[in-house]
Amino acid sequence: MAQTIIEKIISKHAGHDAKEGEITLVQVDGTMASDTTAPLAIQSFENMGGKQVWDPSRVSLVIDHASPAPNQRIANLHSMMREFANQQNIKLYDVGEGICHQLMVENKHVKPGDLFLGADSHTCTYGALGAFATGVGSTDLAGVWLTGKTWVKVPPTIQIRLHGKLQTGVSAKDLVLHLVGTLGIEGATYQAIEYTGEALHHLSLASRMTLANMSIEMGAKAGLVDTIGLEWEDEFEAIHADEDAEYKQVIDVDVSKIESQISVPHSPDHVQPISKVKDTPIQQAFIGSCTNGRLEDLHEAAKILEGNKIAPHVRLIIAPASKKVLDDALSDGTVQILTRAGASFITSGCGPCVGTHQGIPGSNENIISSSNRNFQGRMGNPESNVYLASPAVVAATALHGKITDPSQAEEVGV
Amino acid sequence: MAQTIIEKIISKHAGHDAKEGEITLVQVDGTMASDTTAPLAIQSFENMGGKQVWDPSRVSLVIDHASPAPNQRIANLHSMMREFANQQNIKLYDVGEGICHQLMVENKHVKPGDLFLGADSHTCTYGALGAFATGVGSTDLAGVWLTGKTWVKVPPTIQIRLHGKLQTGVSAKDLVLHLVGTLGIEGATYQAIEYTGEALHHLSLASRMTLANMSIEMGAKAGLVDTIGLEWEDEFEAIHADEDAEYKQVIDVDVSKIESQISVPHSPDHVQPISKVKDTPIQQAFIGSCTNGRLEDLHEAAKILEGNKIAPHVRLIIAPASKKVLDDALSDGTVQILTRAGASFITSGCGPCVGTHQGIPGSNENIISSSNRNFQGRMGNPESNVYLASPAVVAATALHGKITDPSQAEEVGV
Repeated sequence: MAQTIIEKIISKHAGHDAKEGEITLVQVDGTMASDTTAPLAIQSFENMGGKQVWDPSRVSLVIDHASPAPNQRIANLHSMMREFANQQNIKLYDVGEGICHQLMVENKHVKPGDLFLGADSHTCTYGALGAFATGVGSTDLAGVWLTGKTWVKVPPTIQIRLHGKLQTGVSAKDLVLHLVGTLGIEGATYQAIEYTGEALHHLSLASRMTLANMSIEMGAKAGLVDTIGLEWEDEFEAIHADEDAEYKQVIDVDVSKIESQISVPHSPDHVQPISKVKDTPIQQAFIGSCTNGRLEDLHEAAKILEGNKIAPHVRLIIAPASKKVLDDALSDGTVQILTRAGASFITSGCGPCVGTHQGIPGSNENIISSSNRNFQGRMGNPESNVYLASPAVVAATALHGKITDPSQAEEVGV
Repeated sequence: MAQTIIEKIISKHAGHDAKEGEITLVQVDGTMASDTTAPLAIQSFENMGGKQVWDPSRVSLVIDHASPAPNQRIANLHSMMREFANQQNIKLYDVGEGICHQLMVENKHVKPGDLFLGADSHTCTYGALGAFATGVGSTDLAGVWLTGKTWVKVPPTIQIRLHGKLQTGVSAKDLVLHLVGTLGIEGATYQAIEYTGEALHHLSLASRMTLANMSIEMGAKAGLVDTIGLEWEDEFEAIHADEDAEYKQVIDVDVSKIESQISVPHSPDHVQPISKVKDTPIQQAFIGSCTNGRLEDLHEAAKILEGNKIAPHVRLIIAPASKKVLDDALSDGTVQILTRAGASFITSGCGPCVGTHQGIPGSNENIISSSNRNFQGRMGNPESNVYLASPAVVAATALHGKITDPSQAEEVGV
């Protein structure tokens, strides 16, 4: 039977050939919860009578959404997570170690072909490895902690074939914003997206993570990237769809035609080419999040900001996706380039993206952000306006104080 | 007439010889307010009918106490400060630039012999330069913004003569904790402290700032350090007391006898030699604040932590006192030494010291901190216990997970 990538992965974990529409029980390879969802999962686990998780090596906890603790209540939730992790002998990533999704990939808690459940909607990020990874609720996760299993309904798949090569200065973020704008925030609801095509040869693992990450912004259950050209290709078995697999929809995209994209307030699918919104004044800029806080993202920003100073009325806040990203950016001088340009680094974590702390915008301010969602209030102030863009666009915009196309930044002058 | 340092400074600013006990009007050289106090000062200024501050070059605002903004309310207070600064053409230090007291000294907003008022109790820090600097309320500050003047009552002075030289590994923080323990938190209320003696020759400007800073923890109106041996000595006129000046009390201290000191919960004057509290378990360690967040403090920590890892159950949070301190610590590799040892850097600012965000302790946790106050709840959780110590003690304690004398850290083993 010809299968899509997700059908193959689900079949392997169900122990039989699973077909679209079928509801089946599957074995789970790994799980993750953050400080937003772990406390409720722990409570649910204990309410279900849970004593010991089914396999401690397959459970991770991460303190990242509000870290270091912004108040006593959250500090105590962190303590609860530490206590559970100790008691269960499971891995806990504490304050400053990084964003959950980055850590799961960086530390190889997930690998190509895995079935992974995280109590966070951007768990789909690991689709970058050709894994079926999806977000679940805290109580569902608690059930998995007990049994190591869950049920899934095999979703239909939309295949997106990426042709050509991105222009210089245009990144995976622009590509995925373009797709979100095209499909809309409900365009792939209850479906999987499968990314394939020769354009993938030019996308690093970090860029594939950006692409897979925002699949949820199209409503997708998962965003699976074909492993062709993946940096880890040699380490794991490749995962490709069968040639005659059946798709609900096939979309062809010539990525070389895409210019920098901006998602304007207040929905990720309100996407416009940057030329339509250029010169919009900006008061705060943010580079970070599970979408775009990796080394290549900081490098893109540093290329634009090296030797320059951001506009005097702009705050530029940067959160590296992990301590490893920070360490690499310290080693190669990127951190200092960015701080000298006027950036303020915050501890690695989610902070401003989810509006928990460390850079809540003022009312009536415009924010440009490399993160993934701009729903009203997402960054902690419903009276602010959030524009989503690539790290290069965020950096060029911080430099000039208004939305700026990085490919035209030099013409604007410094 | 023989005068103490503070009598000399007040006399110069009053235009006549001022004597202890006298209430006199003085000209003010400089003022400062932070995001905790500036909003109320701005409101008071406007309520008083203020249109233009008396001298924009003598007014600074600093966003440091809750920065980057942890919530919408504070973000809007920051916006209010930016608007006022723009309108008044006064200097505003924005998110990430540093802690107010560090910035006032670093950028020479204050110099030896000045009379400076800040709407923050640790304004006494600038006594390190032989300036009379003291904390005032927001409304008092608003009055100064209007007129450039204030009244002061000339305080009596306690002279503290520092003899000898601190032992290796013992710092100005240990010295000042020893003094706070000796005099008590009300020991110098409504009085000035004057620090003098040959031990000053071995104290850097940074160390003098630590010493002056905690004068308020003895209740002092000001803590003035004689300028002998001050790094800036050549740039400004020296400020010394007259030999036959009258003091309320003279205290002689042989600083070579002092060992590392710890202030135990819940008052800064509950000071004990470290030998009495060693091995107390610690869950969080903090290096930062206007007391001890400078380059020499980070160097002390790096000496102990280089090539090591902090204890697995400890979080070590570091806040450089300013962007300049961060830049220097990036340039010489100190940041990377500390992050590799397990430290998490937060944006330069006050955060955990004042319990606003970025490292609020959990309940029942013990914290060791290089900051200045350990009143119950000071760090944002009244159910936690804060121990005050030098950066070297904080680092050695983070390394071993329990209160550790840095001079004995090696014996404990790593």
